[in-house]
Amino acid sequence: MLNVIKVGGGIVEDAEALSHLVNAFSSIDGPKVLVHGGGRTATEVAAKLGIESNMVGGRRITDAQTLKVVTMVYGGLINKNIVAKLQAKGNNALGLTGADLNCILSDRRPVKDIDYGFAGDVKKVNAGILSDLIGKGIVPVMAPLTHDGKGNMLNTNADTIASEVAKALADRFEVILTFCFEKKGVLSNPEDENSVIKEIVPSTYRDLKSEGVISGGMIPKLDNAFRALEAGVSKVVITEAGELGKGTGTVVHL
Amino acid sequence: MLNVIKVGGGIVEDAEALSHLVNAFSSIDGPKVLVHGGGRTATEVAAKLGIESNMVGGRRITDAQTLKVVTMVYGGLINKNIVAKLQAKGNNALGLTGADLNCILSDRRPVKDIDYGFAGDVKKVNAGILSDLIGKGIVPVMAPLTHDGKGNMLNTNADTIASEVAKALADRFEVILTFCFEKKGVLSNPEDENSVIKEIVPSTYRDLKSEGVISGGMIPKLDNAFRALEAGVSKVVITEAGELGKGTGTVVHL
Repeated sequence: MLNVIKVGGGIVEDAEALSHLVNAFSSIDGPKVLVHGGGRTATEVAAKLGIESNMVGGRRITDAQTLKVVTMVYGGLINKNIVAKLQAKGNNALGLTGADLNCILSDRRPVKDIDYGFAGDVKKVNAGILSDLIGKGIVPVMAPLTHDGKGNMLNTNADTIASEVAKALADRFEVILTFCFEKKGVLSNPEDENSVIKEIVPSTYRDLKSEGVISGGMIPKLDNAFRALEAGVSKVVITEAGELGKGTGTVVHL
Repeated sequence: MLNVIKVGGGIVEDAEALSHLVNAFSSIDGPKVLVHGGGRTATEVAAKLGIESNMVGGRRITDAQTLKVVTMVYGGLINKNIVAKLQAKGNNALGLTGADLNCILSDRRPVKDIDYGFAGDVKKVNAGILSDLIGKGIVPVMAPLTHDGKGNMLNTNADTIASEVAKALADRFEVILTFCFEKKGVLSNPEDENSVIKEIVPSTYRDLKSEGVISGGMIPKLDNAFRALEAGVSKVVITEAGELGKGTGTVVHL
């Protein structure tokens, strides 16, 4: 069994939350991969450097200056701090972007209505390399950055990296893909933190959507989860970072 | 034979010089390791973020804010750009700090007259891990950062990293350690770019020092070279980055 766990920016950017995450993640036995975000810090650092952050539909427009910022923040600051903290807990962590070992190759997103700049759409995950590392007890810590194979880094959504890595490894491992965020799971009542929906399967998903219980930003997250399941991932879990490994949260399966 | 090559900040921070370096480094056959600096960019980014850079004897005082900057700039911006460019040339580059795979563990420099802050003195290079990677045809690209094993990144001099890696690998490989800098080699006349001293051995080093031909910043560089040779490194080369692999520059040996 392989755990692929994605943690959002909010979690890795707060020292105390990061420390909880590192403890919870360290306590998970067996093969595991951590994928992290960091958008909030990127926006902060960009602002201090006088670079405006432009987002369209939650995606960052990555011009040349912004690419430098995200390469620094995701690939350096956040990634290396997580790696050092995991090493201190006895996890043999290795920080990776898609360029390292050519582990994730992307295409620069084609310009249609919007030019997202140096944004990458994942083309190929090198499952062989990742599975070799995992087989040696190494814990890949993946930043939301890939490369185009022509010498350029590309900014790539962390949820996408987590899904693509999980899918690519699904024929070598039984993969559980976990998305950590601020809530305890998918809530049936957004006002009630404890209204976690324990299980979602395709039929309940259709019902919950048509009843309006699931809406907004949760829809692309769950669509993404079902695509991963259809591609061979065993189970998708949506939970709070502090609850990692406790078996709580929402379980999505086919 | 293993080439351990250190390139200074000036080289990796200029797009054209970086492109020459990547071409020259790519043309070197066989096992190789690249160690890079990046101090100039760190100073620039720090200044833009309103953080003052304090240097004592060429070493950066690394307070908590400065540690964030060097972790971003060395571990992220510079390292990943080199990795992406080497990948584009068919080198299977892997960016590493000392925290990744626990490959270089350091002690935080003890406070004597000066508190260097989060500065690391190398304690142990994990030669087994590095030699496994190299044996698989992977090209480690090492940033001047290590960790203390307690969860903290530490700023570490790039020349020191190159020497320590070369020494640690010297009983597994015949190691050539190359320091690239702005000049074509050690010059007998600083005014004359072509006055490269082709060969330095311990006796000529003593003479050149007593005659005042070698002085200033070149003395610690050469002292460092002789320590590496005494620890088993076969040859130290001091040359210009653009001349890599051409057999030019100053050769230092016992």
